[in-house]
Amino acid sequence: MTDSAYAAAGVNYDRLDSFKRAAQQAARTTIGSLAAHGYREPESTRGESAYLIEADDHYLAHVEEGLGTKNLVADAMATLTGRCFYHAIAIDTVATIVNDLITCGALPISVAMHAAVGDSEWFADELRAAELARGFADGCRTAGAVWGGGETPTLKGIVESAAIVLAGSAVGRIAPKSNRIVGRVENGDAIIFLASSGVQTNGLTLCRKIAAEHPEGYLAKMTDGRSFGEGLLDPSVIYVDFVRTCQLQGVPLHYVAHVTGHGWRKLMRLAEPFVYRIDNVTEPLPVFQFIAGAAGLEAREMYGTYNMGVGFAAMVPASAVDAALTAARACGHAAWRAGTVVRAGERRAVEIIPLGITFDSDTLQLR
Amino acid sequence: MTDSAYAAAGVNYDRLDSFKRAAQQAARTTIGSLAAHGYREPESTRGESAYLIEADDHYLAHVEEGLGTKNLVADAMATLTGRCFYHAIAIDTVATIVNDLITCGALPISVAMHAAVGDSEWFADELRAAELARGFADGCRTAGAVWGGGETPTLKGIVESAAIVLAGSAVGRIAPKSNRIVGRVENGDAIIFLASSGVQTNGLTLCRKIAAEHPEGYLAKMTDGRSFGEGLLDPSVIYVDFVRTCQLQGVPLHYVAHVTGHGWRKLMRLAEPFVYRIDNVTEPLPVFQFIAGAAGLEAREMYGTYNMGVGFAAMVPASAVDAALTAARACGHAAWRAGTVVRAGERRAVEIIPLGITFDSDTLQLR
Repeated sequence: MTDSAYAAAGVNYDRLDSFKRAAQQAARTTIGSLAAHGYREPESTRGESAYLIEADDHYLAHVEEGLGTKNLVADAMATLTGRCFYHAIAIDTVATIVNDLITCGALPISVAMHAAVGDSEWFADELRAAELARGFADGCRTAGAVWGGGETPTLKGIVESAAIVLAGSAVGRIAPKSNRIVGRVENGDAIIFLASSGVQTNGLTLCRKIAAEHPEGYLAKMTDGRSFGEGLLDPSVIYVDFVRTCQLQGVPLHYVAHVTGHGWRKLMRLAEPFVYRIDNVTEPLPVFQFIAGAAGLEAREMYGTYNMGVGFAAMVPASAVDAALTAARACGHAAWRAGTVVRAGERRAVEIIPLGITFDSDTLQLR
Repeated sequence: MTDSAYAAAGVNYDRLDSFKRAAQQAARTTIGSLAAHGYREPESTRGESAYLIEADDHYLAHVEEGLGTKNLVADAMATLTGRCFYHAIAIDTVATIVNDLITCGALPISVAMHAAVGDSEWFADELRAAELARGFADGCRTAGAVWGGGETPTLKGIVESAAIVLAGSAVGRIAPKSNRIVGRVENGDAIIFLASSGVQTNGLTLCRKIAAEHPEGYLAKMTDGRSFGEGLLDPSVIYVDFVRTCQLQGVPLHYVAHVTGHGWRKLMRLAEPFVYRIDNVTEPLPVFQFIAGAAGLEAREMYGTYNMGVGFAAMVPASAVDAALTAARACGHAAWRAGTVVRAGERRAVEIIPLGITFDSDTLQLR
């Protein structure tokens, strides 16, 4: 799906990216503050998924992230089925934070929750409130982090009266410093994919539009017999254990990508030009088949927007493929070798060979 | 103002506090995650304004905080006057985060912005977007912190279409560990007050209600000739420099309080029973006089809700009063000795002697 087509569903990435660039420029003017704390800013951390600062013997990492609009699906499904999905939603919230943090090699130590409601009556549903708390704690535990506080403001007139904004932040650490994932891939590196559970936390705006226009809405059946709404609400996978295990076992991670918005285009986030050639594509999960069918989207649009069953990617030397796959599977992740990184002059692209799809670098402009 | 009266303006503290307690219980079950990172949780950091973790030679602090609804005042004033107040609003956002962080003695290293909009068109107002970025950078600089990234989601259906949720997080550090402000006051300690600029970031829901019901709204004149809206939008004071200077100069801070919601009741946050006897009360700023008059609030309600010109309080040994005042003034803060901490058996209270007001401990239940 192109950005302009996605804008029709309410998200203008150009406008957002323009503010993000302005914010990054202003943010750079504050770097001088670090020296008094004994830290400095490593080159090229700006614009990455996690912000890093460097001391002599460690890095600290800081991430602020939000769930997006996925909880609106949980709310709609609660009305339709009477079930509460906020345990899963809370795990999604932790996942979106910590999966960004680990892309630099940092392991999350503390995760804080931000839960802003339009009306404090949101918490009057005691089961929902309890499930939110229990899920957040479970997510933190899976991420190997402590739940380190948070904030629960009532924002009448800013947040819709029945809604909640779920977000948060994490503090992480890299020690020894050699565990940092710098983002230096090499010609011939293997691309390892780790399975996602479904859409995880991206592309939900379009999914809600599909449900609104479908005659059966969220209760429409997918090919596996489950409802579309249930498929959307499978909790996100947390990949911290994979990165930690690779570090403990000395598996060299040249680069990793948390596959989120922009789908597989996210694989080419590195500024250095490489072609990411994918030759092993798995069957899309039922939820992606449903979305493609209901929205009438071509494979090119689906792979450029959704994770398509791949939540995390790791680029490793060809010699480390077995070790990386063993590490992933030891943590309970389905994982497979998906392709190869190829140096092709100045070309930066993602090629999905079995599908005949190529994303050129001009389809991903994040900085 | 009592909590139940404040609830009439849309904020049910009881409901929120109940969820906060449930969240803290669930959060405690994750403490076991810290050991693998080489950290542990110090006693009694749960429920404090900043979350602390302890290593052998330092503490890390983590805070997630939000601005609240103050930016709705900026939006209304922009419509009325054509002026943009988002530089001040961004400083408010940083202030609310870092002023919480420093209450444990941590100095902020990195501050991240969370800016969630209902529609990406929010950023189409280029001046407003630029002022938001510039103000956040200025706030971070004043706080001695780097602006370490952030998140800018579009949350259609969760955030109102013309609104923005402003929040963020900070990572701080205490080193050497002796700089930690543990919260051990002693009979006879002096209470030092540092001036606020006005309401700062608390009690805005009621202020918006006042403006909605006042015939001249935000343009109503205060006693100093400025409008109510302007008075509300004076940017918050950042107190990081005061804590840092005290640490550098060896001024012992037995306890500090960021005076926010719950007004001066916040002075008795410590579980240990003490009476905080205030005998030096300054004339209320025009904005507080206006609020009291327009809402018909007694002094007791005002001092129990608003900061009343006092943004930060420090409890120091009587012998350190001059040094603390000198430190505050060297940083440009108006500061004065306001009163004394008194041990009175099991009694926990705030007494404002010149006004004949006493807040007993049952008026503040935060844990």
